[in-house]
Amino acid sequence: MKILECVPNFSEGRDPDFLKALEAAVQPFPVKILDLSRDADHNRADMTILGEPGAVEEAAMAAACRAVDLIDMTRHKGSHPRMGAVDVVPFIPVRGVAMDEAAAIARRFGKAFGEAKGVPVFFYEDAATSEARRNLADVRKGEYEALPAKLEDPAWTVDAGPQEFNPRAGATAVAARMPLIAFNVNLNCNDLEVARKIAHAVRHVGGGLRYVKAMGLRLVNYQKTPIHRAVELIKAEAARYGVTVRETELVGLVPIEAIQEVVGYYLQLPDFNARQIIEYHLIPDA
Amino acid sequence: MKILECVPNFSEGRDPDFLKALEAAVQPFPVKILDLSRDADHNRADMTILGEPGAVEEAAMAAACRAVDLIDMTRHKGSHPRMGAVDVVPFIPVRGVAMDEAAAIARRFGKAFGEAKGVPVFFYEDAATSEARRNLADVRKGEYEALPAKLEDPAWTVDAGPQEFNPRAGATAVAARMPLIAFNVNLNCNDLEVARKIAHAVRHVGGGLRYVKAMGLRLVNYQKTPIHRAVELIKAEAARYGVTVRETELVGLVPIEAIQEVVGYYLQLPDFNARQIIEYHLIPDA
Repeated sequence: MKILECVPNFSEGRDPDFLKALEAAVQPFPVKILDLSRDADHNRADMTILGEPGAVEEAAMAAACRAVDLIDMTRHKGSHPRMGAVDVVPFIPVRGVAMDEAAAIARRFGKAFGEAKGVPVFFYEDAATSEARRNLADVRKGEYEALPAKLEDPAWTVDAGPQEFNPRAGATAVAARMPLIAFNVNLNCNDLEVARKIAHAVRHVGGGLRYVKAMGLRLVNYQKTPIHRAVELIKAEAARYGVTVRETELVGLVPIEAIQEVVGYYLQLPDFNARQIIEYHLIPDA
Repeated sequence: MKILECVPNFSEGRDPDFLKALEAAVQPFPVKILDLSRDADHNRADMTILGEPGAVEEAAMAAACRAVDLIDMTRHKGSHPRMGAVDVVPFIPVRGVAMDEAAAIARRFGKAFGEAKGVPVFFYEDAATSEARRNLADVRKGEYEALPAKLEDPAWTVDAGPQEFNPRAGATAVAARMPLIAFNVNLNCNDLEVARKIAHAVRHVGGGLRYVKAMGLRLVNYQKTPIHRAVELIKAEAARYGVTVRETELVGLVPIEAIQEVVGYYLQLPDFNARQIIEYHLIPDA
């Protein structure tokens, strides 16, 4: 069994009908929608789909094409960085799919989408064509507004689609990457300055853990920086200010391997494996 | 989707061919063997099978009948309490099966098995016919050796099968019950007396947690006494002797609900749910 995940993000978070349109677009394909949500403040929506690679690729294409038809970037405002109507399309290996395979799918998707809809496409993370384009923040720097100048710059030759500004659609970043784990840690502390210092100490940019980045907490490589390490470091850094963790919140989904690691760490269970979970054996190829 | 688990235990742990015979017995049925192991010291084997209720019931019957044909209790010695060739047959609801349904299956199984093979059968846990028979340790008290006298005692009228001692097969205890979680906690401590005191403090019989019992640690109701509570209480009791936990070891399988609770506790994630695990959605009816 080969299972791929795709989490496209779209620049429309205020029209409830938009989610219905996305749902309708992927409906003909044998994929599961694990999550479909929008944020009015970010003015952004994202969809998580899961299934066999071919079906996921086709469903993502149908959703992306529909979104490009519906969204007009010339009028888009929102608090989240973005450069296109279909802003990012990351493909994530879940089961029996190598990262190379996911990267090949991402590139094929990018090429087909860019050509079909006349949208400049850049590849990032494990689909990137150069180290300079690996990081999404670098690729998206300057956002939608910078695109006209960027597309005239030889350093920003597109990876797929036309080398030409598309005002309605903007540009799209397509990736293959590991699942990323996003979570919020709520502190017993009303002092924003203290919270900022704690967050800074934990993140890679501040000298903290290598694979922790972004505004909230985002683990970009849970194998190398597991969840428990980030949480325990936050507790340790918070303790210096007499601050404790009130609760944490997991945004979206998490791979079982990351959960396995959390259980192994806290219960001091060195050999804990997902196969020891009864329900794991209900997965058809388990 | 209805999924039932069955973990029959057999009084034969020294003959490697016995496991092959069990495997062959269940092979015709659409069940998954999650575990099949034997312990020479206990002189005991156990098998964990999973599948739809009808298939599990039939597979358990085939295995039990085969075991009764192969095992001669008149010659059985081992360090684990036992009273029959097929010692215990617990049916455990996993998904879409109510405990009542599992109890009805257990009783039907016990009746059919007892009659087919001439084996006295007692029901325990949620299949018990009286409170006095709920606890397996009470039902099995005196073990195999006490059976001739027990079967003459009106207090021990069988629940199924003949009211007559079967020297080769002994008696069988059949149950419906929750999954139980068995784990070992290894302490940084060579003093057996200290280890015994810590264990005593944690177990229900010693005034400890209500649903913790047996020789190792056995959580008989992980919903009411979750894993983390037992582990944290052990750490707290061990600390009084300056002893720490070296590692823990999970024996057999654990339901996802118990893992969900561990993750929720240690990460202070109040709303963590198995549905946030990507792979959970690969279960056909998830």
